[in-house]
Amino acid sequence: MTTPFYLGIVGVGGVGKAFLEQLGRLPNPPKLVLLARSSQTLSSPVPLFSPSIPFTTWEDAAKSPSLVKSGALPPTEIAAFLASTPGRAILVDNTSDLALAETYPTFLEQGVSVVTPNKKGFSEDITLFNNIFASAIRGNALVQHQCTVGGTLPVLSTLRDLVATGDEIIRIEGVLSGTLSLLLGEFMPGNGISNARWSSLVSHAKEIGHTEPDPRDDLNGVDFARKLTIIARVIGIEVTRPDSFPVESLIPVELSSLPPSPEGTTEFMRELPKYDVRMDAARKAAQEQGKILRYVGSIDVSTRAIEVGLRHVEKGSLIANLQGSQIVSIYTKRYDTNPLILQGGGGGGEVTAMGLMADLLKVMEQLK
Amino acid sequence: MTTPFYLGIVGVGGVGKAFLEQLGRLPNPPKLVLLARSSQTLSSPVPLFSPSIPFTTWEDAAKSPSLVKSGALPPTEIAAFLASTPGRAILVDNTSDLALAETYPTFLEQGVSVVTPNKKGFSEDITLFNNIFASAIRGNALVQHQCTVGGTLPVLSTLRDLVATGDEIIRIEGVLSGTLSLLLGEFMPGNGISNARWSSLVSHAKEIGHTEPDPRDDLNGVDFARKLTIIARVIGIEVTRPDSFPVESLIPVELSSLPPSPEGTTEFMRELPKYDVRMDAARKAAQEQGKILRYVGSIDVSTRAIEVGLRHVEKGSLIANLQGSQIVSIYTKRYDTNPLILQGGGGGGEVTAMGLMADLLKVMEQLK
Repeated sequence: MTTPFYLGIVGVGGVGKAFLEQLGRLPNPPKLVLLARSSQTLSSPVPLFSPSIPFTTWEDAAKSPSLVKSGALPPTEIAAFLASTPGRAILVDNTSDLALAETYPTFLEQGVSVVTPNKKGFSEDITLFNNIFASAIRGNALVQHQCTVGGTLPVLSTLRDLVATGDEIIRIEGVLSGTLSLLLGEFMPGNGISNARWSSLVSHAKEIGHTEPDPRDDLNGVDFARKLTIIARVIGIEVTRPDSFPVESLIPVELSSLPPSPEGTTEFMRELPKYDVRMDAARKAAQEQGKILRYVGSIDVSTRAIEVGLRHVEKGSLIANLQGSQIVSIYTKRYDTNPLILQGGGGGGEVTAMGLMADLLKVMEQLK
Repeated sequence: MTTPFYLGIVGVGGVGKAFLEQLGRLPNPPKLVLLARSSQTLSSPVPLFSPSIPFTTWEDAAKSPSLVKSGALPPTEIAAFLASTPGRAILVDNTSDLALAETYPTFLEQGVSVVTPNKKGFSEDITLFNNIFASAIRGNALVQHQCTVGGTLPVLSTLRDLVATGDEIIRIEGVLSGTLSLLLGEFMPGNGISNARWSSLVSHAKEIGHTEPDPRDDLNGVDFARKLTIIARVIGIEVTRPDSFPVESLIPVELSSLPPSPEGTTEFMRELPKYDVRMDAARKAAQEQGKILRYVGSIDVSTRAIEVGLRHVEKGSLIANLQGSQIVSIYTKRYDTNPLILQGGGGGGEVTAMGLMADLLKVMEQLK
């Protein structure tokens, strides 16, 4: 007798759509009983939780009278709904919503496991992070958030294995933003030679969808800092918040007070060329030292120093040769001279959805 | 109420000793009730399976009358002993023994899980491989053998995740022998410049313990071919045997009939310098093309072609820059232009034991 699994999905953007499609190809898929997007929620009628929502034709199914339609539900109601299913329930949060992440403990306390690429729950205040894992233990539920760091690269599971088996992490260094990896790789290739203008590269990357809709969300380094915060916590360093260590923003300070609105984005893009001279100077400084300019994050375990920003790296090094890939180098007591390195092409909806799916499969495997 | 775990360990060499030491540091260790080496077996008295064997002081404990001493037990008897414990039993096989690996199905059928770095069970005839996993399902037991490939690099779990989530593997390329990585890296560094003599490098590596006691076990490429066989099978290519595809041996054919005895090893080492001219020619051929000589394995999924041997690789590439590390590059439908790369310092007793421990923890987590 196998455990029946009931799935609730919040968020149907790029990752969510790819994830639903991948669900449709699973041999023994869970039952999808709740699907929520910003203003609308689709759910299976109680008490039978049947019919379930079809994975790929949910938009058509939404019109049928056999499913329940409602407006946006508060997270606590979603948690109560999933907790009442007659099997093991799992929340898949495909959003980047802090409010939902803050409710994870409510889900977990009631036995609803959480699988998500949403970084907020694990990188905001440390009390939320601790609360999530304590609630999971109390509710006998699982939390999987591997793809909050490094796309599908097995960064967190590898670090957990190293720590669990008694290795000592000495230093972690990496490039954890596919977008900044790409931009810096174009701005200053591994051979050091380029006259590319920084603002043009940002503008082009935005046009072809390689940045967030608002490129400032990449350039401010916050997303990168969140990933580093999560890594630090997983190896046992209690980082209070993602802004409690130095993060160098690539947004010129003169433009930092522009509003976060689409108008603000437009003005930012228009003003950015005026500050190209600064990135040119940074590139020149690296050139003069025979080094390569990269946007790098690092954690030094003994001093607990965490930093994110522009750095000069050695020509020929793995980081110098990056062209859009993310990379994590892990130096430990056992991997001393030859670090353990994980490297791979950035994120993107389908790849993130795949990481999410691997996490879901792990949860189903462990709860079966 | 937590499940009690009963552990049987076979093999107390470099890996086994390090593993026992790591067991001693676990917060909730399993009970060690059987410890077997070549000619001697130590076990807890039945029917209580108590006292258990202490992890680090087992040599002293072996003298105490409270534990049972016997000669070498046949694997079937070890399986029956572990299957009769009043909890979940796990066999940790630290040997490279084919006979023991051939008995894994007997262990698994009786519900005894298997954790091992022993490649034999997974790389010999495909019928054994299939039998192992079919038996595990029938016996509701688990098999973990992550460290049969790439030391503690998460190669197999990553490949399994990719396949399970519907990605399509296109090509896998790698260097899966730490020893050959080191030797070739010294023989022809990333810049291509060296006059080092091949036989001297082999001889030095043997002296400082960087090769197997008999370096021919590294040079013949068989161990590398076994790893590639395991990888191929995990991604669904039914390789019949590890010798069913081309493997280039670095043992001069004239020396291939020397006996596998220590005397054979001695004679091999004495004769090897006579054949340095061949490796010199191989290095020169690479130099003339501006390439670097490396010992590489590859799997092309569409043609099902698997090969291991000396190859010319591009200067500046990751493989060209290796110095003793192992590396696996995975090209998939999703990781097309930017492959997923796992790289790390080779094996060694303590690192392998750590991978083994991570596998053991996973089994205990899933069976709890």
